[in-house]
Amino acid sequence: MKEHSPVPTDIDPVQLTADLIRCPSVTPEEGGALVLLQKLLADAGFDCHRVDRNGTPNLFARWGRKGANRTFGFNGHTDVVPVGDADAWTCDPFGGEISDGWLWGRGATDMKSGVAAFVAAAVDFVRETPPDGAILLTITGDEEGPGKDGTLALLDWMAERGEAMSVCLVGEPTCPERMGEMMKIGRRGSMSVTFTAEGVQGHSAYPHRAKNPLHALVRVMDRLASEPLDEGTEHFDASTLAITTIDTGNTATNVIPARAIARVNIRFNDAHTSETLTARLREHALAIQAETGVNFALDVVVSGESFLTPPGDFVRMVAVSVEAETGVTPVLSTSGGTSDARFVKDHCPVVEFGLVGKTMHQVDERVEVAQIGQLKAIYSRILRDYFA
Amino acid sequence: MKEHSPVPTDIDPVQLTADLIRCPSVTPEEGGALVLLQKLLADAGFDCHRVDRNGTPNLFARWGRKGANRTFGFNGHTDVVPVGDADAWTCDPFGGEISDGWLWGRGATDMKSGVAAFVAAAVDFVRETPPDGAILLTITGDEEGPGKDGTLALLDWMAERGEAMSVCLVGEPTCPERMGEMMKIGRRGSMSVTFTAEGVQGHSAYPHRAKNPLHALVRVMDRLASEPLDEGTEHFDASTLAITTIDTGNTATNVIPARAIARVNIRFNDAHTSETLTARLREHALAIQAETGVNFALDVVVSGESFLTPPGDFVRMVAVSVEAETGVTPVLSTSGGTSDARFVKDHCPVVEFGLVGKTMHQVDERVEVAQIGQLKAIYSRILRDYFA
Ligand SMILES: [Zn+2]
Ligand SMILES: [Zn+2]
Repeated sequence: MKEHSPVPTDIDPVQLTADLIRCPSVTPEEGGALVLLQKLLADAGFDCHRVDRNGTPNLFARWGRKGANRTFGFNGHTDVVPVGDADAWTCDPFGGEISDGWLWGRGATDMKSGVAAFVAAAVDFVRETPPDGAILLTITGDEEGPGKDGTLALLDWMAERGEAMSVCLVGEPTCPERMGEMMKIGRRGSMSVTFTAEGVQGHSAYPHRAKNPLHALVRVMDRLASEPLDEGTEHFDASTLAITTIDTGNTATNVIPARAIARVNIRFNDAHTSETLTARLREHALAIQAETGVNFALDVVVSGESFLTPPGDFVRMVAVSVEAETGVTPVLSTSGGTSDARFVKDHCPVVEFGLVGKTMHQVDERVEVAQIGQLKAIYSRILRDYFA
Repeated sequence: MKEHSPVPTDIDPVQLTADLIRCPSVTPEEGGALVLLQKLLADAGFDCHRVDRNGTPNLFARWGRKGANRTFGFNGHTDVVPVGDADAWTCDPFGGEISDGWLWGRGATDMKSGVAAFVAAAVDFVRETPPDGAILLTITGDEEGPGKDGTLALLDWMAERGEAMSVCLVGEPTCPERMGEMMKIGRRGSMSVTFTAEGVQGHSAYPHRAKNPLHALVRVMDRLASEPLDEGTEHFDASTLAITTIDTGNTATNVIPARAIARVNIRFNDAHTSETLTARLREHALAIQAETGVNFALDVVVSGESFLTPPGDFVRMVAVSVEAETGVTPVLSTSGGTSDARFVKDHCPVVEFGLVGKTMHQVDERVEVAQIGQLKAIYSRILRDYFA
């Protein structure tokens, strides 16, 4: 029997994406995705740790020395949203099939392709041109869920151990239509506020004997919906407020209910914080409370404050790499929902770049095979530039 | 064995009320109440017919000739609302117990006492002083329910057979606190309108891509709640509008829903009809529809139009009898919810007078025993005056 050392070949990010899609990692299931990545990264010389918290699976992996002067971070998630209407899919959502130049399945764009691309880029890079510094990967199994024990748990664990990143790139899909057209240098904040209006129940024939919580509630809501929060700021679109639900559950047409609730979701830019907005909402509610005698209680849940990584060296480096590989100059955007970048930004400058996210969370989620290779090439170029 | 004719004695309306309370006639159950009354009335020489429609039990009874020139009508119901929280009752809701001068049970005020009082008054009256005319009783087993096959069925049946009333007294409880203080000479109308706002669903981070039905709905509702319908009319209080429910059922904080509903209940006086009000609501909805692009559909359910029996001979006669027996001058009111008088008014002048309704529909519903006797005396005096 002849011994031979394996010939190192580049990791195929398309194959890796397909393998990950075949792991049914619907939040909070690990589904085999992190196990697969851990094996691959450990084989490539990364120091790997599962950093599970309260049952949520997370993977930490570092190549190079802890505390290195230059530490490049990648962040992503392997969990996916549920399949939804399974019958509506034209393929197996966990099949990872390729046809017509597309790779199909849940997580194809959000964001198993992104994870596969940065893992492949990192592994190849450290093997081919071991850098003077460290590459640090944080991959969570709970970005689509509550997120309390996902990237946050990884960052807490790292802080305790003195693990730090100089910069971090989150590999979420960022391009609306065309590969390379957008990167994110910040995100609006997001908060939800539930208003509970408590009045006095009564018969609808005698409204003066009751205090109708709905009359007070619609007035507050109409004012909130009518008054713009701002006109936008230098790097941000205008903040928005959406009433997402109003509920009473009163089936009796002759009864004025005692209580009703309304919930609003606010996406806010750097002109506000969750605190200044809470004060503003409370002021509106108290004004109507004084007018009507209906009492308001506000329950505030902050998903994330707004943040911005101001255009500078890091942002420029990413943008230049995107343009070099795609021929497209990415817009520096702060639009969209929240991502785990909202946690990372408390630790180091963070930007987000990934491929076209058009079908994310939809039936027949799919990614152009060619984009996965392009994405790996972009991430590879960023690593080269960063450690040059 | 010696034969003897029975000595006629006056019917005890307290005993009869208690007997009726012991019939568990929660809408739509007949519970034995109409059977009991039919036997009693038939024995007293009334021509009785069960006029059931679609399973709803109703009783028609006439003493005297059909088509008599002077026909006095009484209307009432034997059905009762459910017990509610049975454990909260301090007595058996269907026990008909008397203690401390009160008769207890579901229906004690609404309105088994009223039915017992007019049945007792009518039976005694025709036996003691047979009038030159007719007395006609319409008693339904569905006033508390949908009411489509209750008094309406009786009136339809009568119209087909040429049975008519010259005037009608509805025996619903009408006094808020003190026996004799109020009678009703009309009622406001009542209608419920359900607004369905249909927008375009979307992500709450991108409200400009959605059309939020709630933003449109709260604006319509705030306008409706803020704008008085009128200032009241000669015999009526101001019309009122109460939003009774707004529902969406959206549990996702990041989703703008496609649809939301709101329902309003309007109690309206003779300045409006259900038609003029519907036009007004539709106009408001269409204005906001034009502003927002959210579509509105209105579903209108009219419980009854407003009506008035203008003060005149009949009203005066009832008021005088009330004052003679109680020492209290009754207010001629049009306040309160709807009653079956809204159906009767299409056939003859109708007024309502009954005892104190304070505990109606409540736990521990009860009636002062003395008031039942007083009520029978008032009804007896009205019959004497009417046929004098
Ligand atoms: Zn994602
Ligand atoms: Zn009643």
